[in-house]
Amino acid sequence: MSLRLSARAVIRPPILNSRGLATATSLPKVSRGPTGIVLLNMGGPSTIPEVYDFLYRLFADGDLIPLGRYQEPLARFIAWRRTPKIEHHYEEIGGGSPIRKWSEFQATEMCKRLDKLSPETAPHKGYVAFRYAKPLTDETLKQMQHDGIKRAIAFTQYPQYSCSTTGSSLNELWKVTKSLDPNSEIKWSVIDRWPTHSGLVKTFAQLIKDKLKEYDEKVRDKVILLFSAHSLPMSVVNRGDPYPAEVAATAHSVMRELKFTNPYRLVWQSQVGPSAWLGAQTSDTVKSLVKKGQTNIILVPIAFTSDHIETLHELDLEIIKETKVEGIKRAESLNGHPMFIDALADVVHSHLKDGAVASNQYHMQCPMCKKEVCSDSRRFFLSQ
Amino acid sequence: MSLRLSARAVIRPPILNSRGLATATSLPKVSRGPTGIVLLNMGGPSTIPEVYDFLYRLFADGDLIPLGRYQEPLARFIAWRRTPKIEHHYEEIGGGSPIRKWSEFQATEMCKRLDKLSPETAPHKGYVAFRYAKPLTDETLKQMQHDGIKRAIAFTQYPQYSCSTTGSSLNELWKVTKSLDPNSEIKWSVIDRWPTHSGLVKTFAQLIKDKLKEYDEKVRDKVILLFSAHSLPMSVVNRGDPYPAEVAATAHSVMRELKFTNPYRLVWQSQVGPSAWLGAQTSDTVKSLVKKGQTNIILVPIAFTSDHIETLHELDLEIIKETKVEGIKRAESLNGHPMFIDALADVVHSHLKDGAVASNQYHMQCPMCKKEVCSDSRRFFLSQ
Repeated sequence: MSLRLSARAVIRPPILNSRGLATATSLPKVSRGPTGIVLLNMGGPSTIPEVYDFLYRLFADGDLIPLGRYQEPLARFIAWRRTPKIEHHYEEIGGGSPIRKWSEFQATEMCKRLDKLSPETAPHKGYVAFRYAKPLTDETLKQMQHDGIKRAIAFTQYPQYSCSTTGSSLNELWKVTKSLDPNSEIKWSVIDRWPTHSGLVKTFAQLIKDKLKEYDEKVRDKVILLFSAHSLPMSVVNRGDPYPAEVAATAHSVMRELKFTNPYRLVWQSQVGPSAWLGAQTSDTVKSLVKKGQTNIILVPIAFTSDHIETLHELDLEIIKETKVEGIKRAESLNGHPMFIDALADVVHSHLKDGAVASNQYHMQCPMCKKEVCSDSRRFFLSQ
Repeated sequence: MSLRLSARAVIRPPILNSRGLATATSLPKVSRGPTGIVLLNMGGPSTIPEVYDFLYRLFADGDLIPLGRYQEPLARFIAWRRTPKIEHHYEEIGGGSPIRKWSEFQATEMCKRLDKLSPETAPHKGYVAFRYAKPLTDETLKQMQHDGIKRAIAFTQYPQYSCSTTGSSLNELWKVTKSLDPNSEIKWSVIDRWPTHSGLVKTFAQLIKDKLKEYDEKVRDKVILLFSAHSLPMSVVNRGDPYPAEVAATAHSVMRELKFTNPYRLVWQSQVGPSAWLGAQTSDTVKSLVKKGQTNIILVPIAFTSDHIETLHELDLEIIKETKVEGIKRAESLNGHPMFIDALADVVHSHLKDGAVASNQYHMQCPMCKKEVCSDSRRFFLSQ
């Protein structure tokens, strides 16, 4: 499976004839396409020199880390302080984040499937818009305009909705759209969550089964499955963010698909800073289980679709390698698994057939959220 | 539907012939029965004079509220302090908790269905064992011994497992068994959780649909569904208690059954004391939504099977009645709904067919739990 796809290869549209219709013979004579599909994600620095900018954008995002009126200078300071350490982490995982390569591969392969599944909306053109790394939202939107896209789908690559992740990406997309496309020439719809999509669930289950096969049959059904998701500050949880419940729904669906063969827990990783975060913490859980002699454990990254620093460094190096226990392993990430690409295409195909502009759940802002940007961006997307 | 069933009516076995087999003609000639099925729950004071004892037992339960070495005197003090207020609450809901009446009704009706579904394990005899009110576990176990029960199922009436609830009830059952049945003449198996049982989910969905019909068609699909569950202290959540994730799984399954017609959130009620509890809080959520002008809300009690003080007083009087907003309603509790009774019977029937002594998940103690009673009681039930 080649990952040598440049962004250009992905965002370049299929060959079009003079009427803007794809030349593939399977397409109907009148297509409502082209359809732009934008994979939204946080992104990561593809190379070491991009680390500072990535960290700066991350800490400057008030939807993710609210730092008040001094957000901007504080973001510069924190990014500057953390850059050397994080650069080192990225060096240790091979010199950069693979998330761009995976995202571009997923977009390209998904669109190939969609052209067959849904010829009436073809050609499908895949784009990537990252929140904190290139390609950023404005760059992608300009490319879409250049490609003549009039109909687009914002497809979150966080299967479970959080205001800190999908919410932040949609707010950014709304802001950029206001400035670059003030007359709303691109009509948007939103895939804002897909936590228990059957293809997603089946792929997770398959990757767990693959990993379970590495254990001796005698202990296989005793292996503990730890579904690990990025944690949230309790202030966000207590505001009514839907993410913890949706992550739990994914984990439960995967266990149901596995027929509950193994004991399991949902745990939370990547807590930072002094404030209270949702637990149980992944690292504490592994340590405690090992102390109790439970040393056959599979960590399952359940809230990201591609490998990134939190799997390749935090789980693989800081937790698994540190424990020096052979029985502690990690299930592969979804990355380019063919079942997962099928799932992505099916999510979009169902969305196109369904015709809804977003999920019913997207209509509801978090109960205790008072941020205007969240209601404004909602109003924008729901009025499309 | 008559609720005038005394405990005696429930725990009295069907008429047996001299060989201990039920005389019903539908039963096979050789039955492995009788099978005792014990519904485990927290219970509540059936009358006002029982309030103090109920509160005392509740605060004396270190599995629910760990108060350290002074647990016993502190429990007496706190119960004494709170009794007048709680007595008043029970007066306001009609003079006592209906949980015993409902539990006995559920046990009786469930057993009638089981005698037909599973003649090979008939007769089925329903019992109730409450953790903090009569009938307490020791009283029930004595009655079972008197009835000659040799095979029994501990069936938690908390669909989602928490160490504070089902865990506490099983620890108590283990302790009482050690003392009253030291030679283990009764063989136990455990139904320790059933958060997404299809019958449970369908009944919840039906009760929500029934309530939605009370709204004008124009606003019906805008009504916000608030699934409300009893909260947990963050110390318990962070220890790795599986309850929050299982409650979320129930709520998500119900929404899936409803085809995600409405926006919804999972919220948490009944926080007490100064320590941090899991949110978002039910009461805050309702207040915030009303402030935003979202006044069509259905509260759905998602973690209890029968009405109790937390629905009849906290939701109905303290939250709904207080807001004085017509559009805020509560879905009925499962109580004696025929679909729910069918679900109870199906849970037990599946358990009997499956033959497992408990779920695979029950094998795993909470990662950060160091309580010996939790591992000892597990060992006891899993060795049956």
